[in-house]
Amino acid sequence: MTDLSPAIERKTRDSFARQSLMATFGASIGLLAPGTCTVVAPILPLARQQHGVGHAGLTFALGDTAAGYAALTLMPEESEVMTVEMKINLLAPARGDRLIAEGRVIRAGRRVSVVTTEVFAEKADGRDLVAILQGTMVPVTPRDRT
Amino acid sequence: MTDLSPAIERKTRDSFARQSLMATFGASIGLLAPGTCTVVAPILPLARQQHGVGHAGLTFALGDTAAGYAALTLMPEESEVMTVEMKINLLAPARGDRLIAEGRVIRAGRRVSVVTTEVFAEKADGRDLVAILQGTMVPVTPRDRT
Amino acid sequence: MTDLSPAIERKTRDSFARQSLMATFGASIGLLAPGTCTVVAPILPLARQQHGVGHAGLTFALGDTAAGYAALTLMPEESEVMTVEMKINLLAPARGDRLIAEGRVIRAGRRVSVVTTEVFAEKADGRDLVAILQGTMVPVTPRDRT
Amino acid sequence: MTDLSPAIERKTRDSFARQSLMATFGASIGLLAPGTCTVVAPILPLARQQHGVGHAGLTFALGDTAAGYAALTLMPEESEVMTVEMKINLLAPARGDRLIAEGRVIRAGRRVSVVTTEVFAEKADGRDLVAILQGTMVPVTPRDRT
Repeated sequence: MTDLSPAIERKTRDSFARQSLMATFGASIGLLAPGTCTVVAPILPLARQQHGVGHAGLTFALGDTAAGYAALTLMPEESEVMTVEMKINLLAPARGDRLIAEGRVIRAGRRVSVVTTEVFAEKADGRDLVAILQGTMVPVTPRDRT
Repeated sequence: MTDLSPAIERKTRDSFARQSLMATFGASIGLLAPGTCTVVAPILPLARQQHGVGHAGLTFALGDTAAGYAALTLMPEESEVMTVEMKINLLAPARGDRLIAEGRVIRAGRRVSVVTTEVFAEKADGRDLVAILQGTMVPVTPRDRT
Repeated sequence: MTDLSPAIERKTRDSFARQSLMATFGASIGLLAPGTCTVVAPILPLARQQHGVGHAGLTFALGDTAAGYAALTLMPEESEVMTVEMKINLLAPARGDRLIAEGRVIRAGRRVSVVTTEVFAEKADGRDLVAILQGTMVPVTPRDRT
Repeated sequence: MTDLSPAIERKTRDSFARQSLMATFGASIGLLAPGTCTVVAPILPLARQQHGVGHAGLTFALGDTAAGYAALTLMPEESEVMTVEMKINLLAPARGDRLIAEGRVIRAGRRVSVVTTEVFAEKADGRDLVAILQGTMVPVTPRDRT
């Protein structure tokens, strides 16, 4: 695996930094490399469901974002990325110190990219797989968004 | 369609009120009736993606919550509800005054319920369909969660 | 709703006729109109699962095909159609005289189209909803497939 | 990983043998072990789409079946298995000598199991990943099916 070009790394981190929802969740990018992106966040009191564990919307948001930026690392430099669709299976409650979403590109295509993410809840004594996601990303150029 | 029993309505609204993520998003329940639940929220500055429109995580969270409580209205009184899986297709940017997620039960089963949600962005001049979701909910009793 | 152009109707029916799997299943196109396509098939003895009802693969194949051709009716005349992804929720056993898959376009885009299908099992005394599908189609031109 | 009990192996193979659709497709079980099942099939002329490659319905049927029997290997001896929902992303045309669907259990639960499958097309010079599936299986006892 080659290194990520500085231009693509900067574009990806800048894009992430503009996502206010990630700031709201206290999320940050961990590992970022060609075809993979890890997003890490605590399970803040503001992001809970009715039983006090992380809301599925939190898990989804982290997982989708990790998958999207994993895809973006393999797209042309002028592209941004957009989620076409995403499917999540929830395996266990999001309970622990923080969530770690590991996004990965399965196939990078010119028109669509297929991505998956595993989301783990990290605890003092290890980590649990809490969700898996599978979805589709497309490159977007400034022209597409007008 | 019969009316919602007061006990189930109270249980559903109480559960929603305990979801801190819904409070964070400024969301509230609109219509609540047997087999259907509408969740409404503004697109707050804290819930945006990199281009300034609502994050897919916001759209998902509202859509999943509407679907879950739609399912809960048809479950036994002692049950709570949990998302097994959910799939979202994003159709248009979440841009406008507020999002309206209309959840609906397609089939209520003893073991699993199948649900769909349409999410609309409301604007001065009408509303756009921004996402559709399709997923599976299960009833959970206090015993299941131990 | 305008009528389907003769050229697109012919293209769609010709494409369906080249799908040997549809012939194997005894399937045919029912209604075909802009943005919608119905595919009908018996539940042949060759397409069963272990309990003697229609295999999920049969239900999926009919549902995916109906959705794809629904999308094709709204694509440019030189395009063909390809499934990017499809999700199916199975609601009831595929048991009855025949299956009817009603595909419908939710949003026709230049790059991707979002589609849904409902699949019904028809019996002497009515019909049951046996599955719902939600997915993504893309237009393909001869150039894309090389 | 422990070995598969003879009773569960027999139950699984017997169930597969009763699926007429698998016989129609010329499919057979390859590897069968706790939490995993491989289903192999040629791409027969009877299972093609309009461009002469394997139909998405074929890929789905093999992938769903591999996932279901992977789940069945971890279920109680009296259970059978049923697909609740399944999502497929298609990555490449199903072209080659045969398809190999490798099903795997991600999480085996008492009420629901989460499964994934990778489907490969095998050619003289290697194999291509043509699809990935992610879905939910439930155990079914004879009582549930009445």
